[in-house]
Amino acid sequence: MPLFHGLSAFPLTPTDAAGKVQEALLARFLDRIVAAGVDSIGLLGSTGTYAYLSRDERQHALRVAVGHVRGRVPLIAGVGALRTDEAVALAQDARAAGADGLLLAPMSYTPLTEEEVFQHFATVAEAGGLPLCIYNNPTTTHFTFSLELIERLAALPHVAAIKMPLPAKGDFTDEIERIRARTPAGFAVGYSGDWGATDALLAGCNAWYSVVAGLLPGEALKLTRAAQSGDAAAAKHWNARFEPLWEQFRTFGSLRVMYAIAEVLDLGGAIPPRPLLPLPPAERSRVELAVQGLLTER
Amino acid sequence: MPLFHGLSAFPLTPTDAAGKVQEALLARFLDRIVAAGVDSIGLLGSTGTYAYLSRDERQHALRVAVGHVRGRVPLIAGVGALRTDEAVALAQDARAAGADGLLLAPMSYTPLTEEEVFQHFATVAEAGGLPLCIYNNPTTTHFTFSLELIERLAALPHVAAIKMPLPAKGDFTDEIERIRARTPAGFAVGYSGDWGATDALLAGCNAWYSVVAGLLPGEALKLTRAAQSGDAAAAKHWNARFEPLWEQFRTFGSLRVMYAIAEVLDLGGAIPPRPLLPLPPAERSRVELAVQGLLTER
Repeated sequence: MPLFHGLSAFPLTPTDAAGKVQEALLARFLDRIVAAGVDSIGLLGSTGTYAYLSRDERQHALRVAVGHVRGRVPLIAGVGALRTDEAVALAQDARAAGADGLLLAPMSYTPLTEEEVFQHFATVAEAGGLPLCIYNNPTTTHFTFSLELIERLAALPHVAAIKMPLPAKGDFTDEIERIRARTPAGFAVGYSGDWGATDALLAGCNAWYSVVAGLLPGEALKLTRAAQSGDAAAAKHWNARFEPLWEQFRTFGSLRVMYAIAEVLDLGGAIPPRPLLPLPPAERSRVELAVQGLLTER
Repeated sequence: MPLFHGLSAFPLTPTDAAGKVQEALLARFLDRIVAAGVDSIGLLGSTGTYAYLSRDERQHALRVAVGHVRGRVPLIAGVGALRTDEAVALAQDARAAGADGLLLAPMSYTPLTEEEVFQHFATVAEAGGLPLCIYNNPTTTHFTFSLELIERLAALPHVAAIKMPLPAKGDFTDEIERIRARTPAGFAVGYSGDWGATDALLAGCNAWYSVVAGLLPGEALKLTRAAQSGDAAAAKHWNARFEPLWEQFRTFGSLRVMYAIAEVLDLGGAIPPRPLLPLPPAERSRVELAVQGLLTER
């Protein structure tokens, strides 16, 4: 499957309280993802807490992942940073480490203009020299891409895909058509927001950038393959099994819930980067029930 | 005047394209601020591009400022960071360098919960050990403080003040009363958003955290003193003279306009941290006219 198509699994980057990567735990997350046979790995995405990690630790995570995955699954590396020169350095690091593609979010503190985001992407894409996916995630970046800006960016060398947030009105078909009408043939349109992925895939998007697949890749892949084959009933069945987890994702943010899922799966030990806090115990019990329900054959 | 009262001037932190502090230019900005006789300096605020500077360069700016100001004006240092441990280190750096107070914004990538922000502030305030001002700036942090959270934070040791954004409905009196009713005596309530400062000061707030005073401290101080003395006519006269600049601030963001003001004042040479871009030439001409109008006696 081409890069930026199919199911992309976003693992946590497990770190200790000081922000150091826990190599053995990251390797265990990656083993599950590789074994499931997903289409790509989204290392150092928002779920991989890239925004909270030093350049050294981001290189560290890349080294561990490239060494462990050994080309069996394509690796997409998040390279977002508040400064353009930092994002350039991270993109060069990712390429040097052996990543297959880049994921770039317009992180912001001072709200950015369209021209600033355009120049930022043009600079990083050129310096990185790898296929790049625009990471459109207004919840964390506080920047919203206009269709005009997507069109300008998609015309740049290396810019090959976009990762979209769920549309406010839920009309995937219309949004995908509007983006495809203004971007080159082969430009890939994917979605994040796990609870909307079934509808997005059934509407014909190219990729599901999945948080939950970072820890439950097999189940996420069954949903994906069902939707890709047009079996709406099977896809919706899987979506319904995931729904108790989606409810937790929507309520607490998917990142916090992922740390709890890791504990339920006996893959615990990672510490969310403070100020982020683990879920309170009562909510962790709900996550446990949701995971058990998902994993129980019905 | 007590710390966190009166006019606080927020200078740019001038840096080159690589993000290195330009010492001589920073010293010139500080000279103007000290000479004007403002009540405090807000070093490494949003205008001081703290979010874009490395820990080393933030220490560098602090060393230059403390050495240059030599206690003539109290120094408040911005210590915000995405990670709690980084903000702790920055607060300890600021104290070690000789700052008089701290300014802490809840920078975010993953949207934060109230409890996360509370624990972040409690940890940094304790580690810093200096009077601390809560930096409430939803435009950049994307976190909005509830009155309940302000009450909890104001009860912590060291937490002495809040820097508020302009209220949506412009009713300063009501907002100030509501905050004072839930915070200890002496807790200082100040505002940022230069175009609303006149009304805020006339409504009896304790401080104006001023972007423009970073480069035009004398004029900002005249407005402040007029408002503090209850001379509404004189304060509004000054506010009207500033209005062409406020228009630029509202349109382009005050930070970008400040780099243009510096050029107009023959204090140019600093490079905004990319992806931030300087104003286009046509807009720089408007800033020049606005500054000239302000500085021409009427």
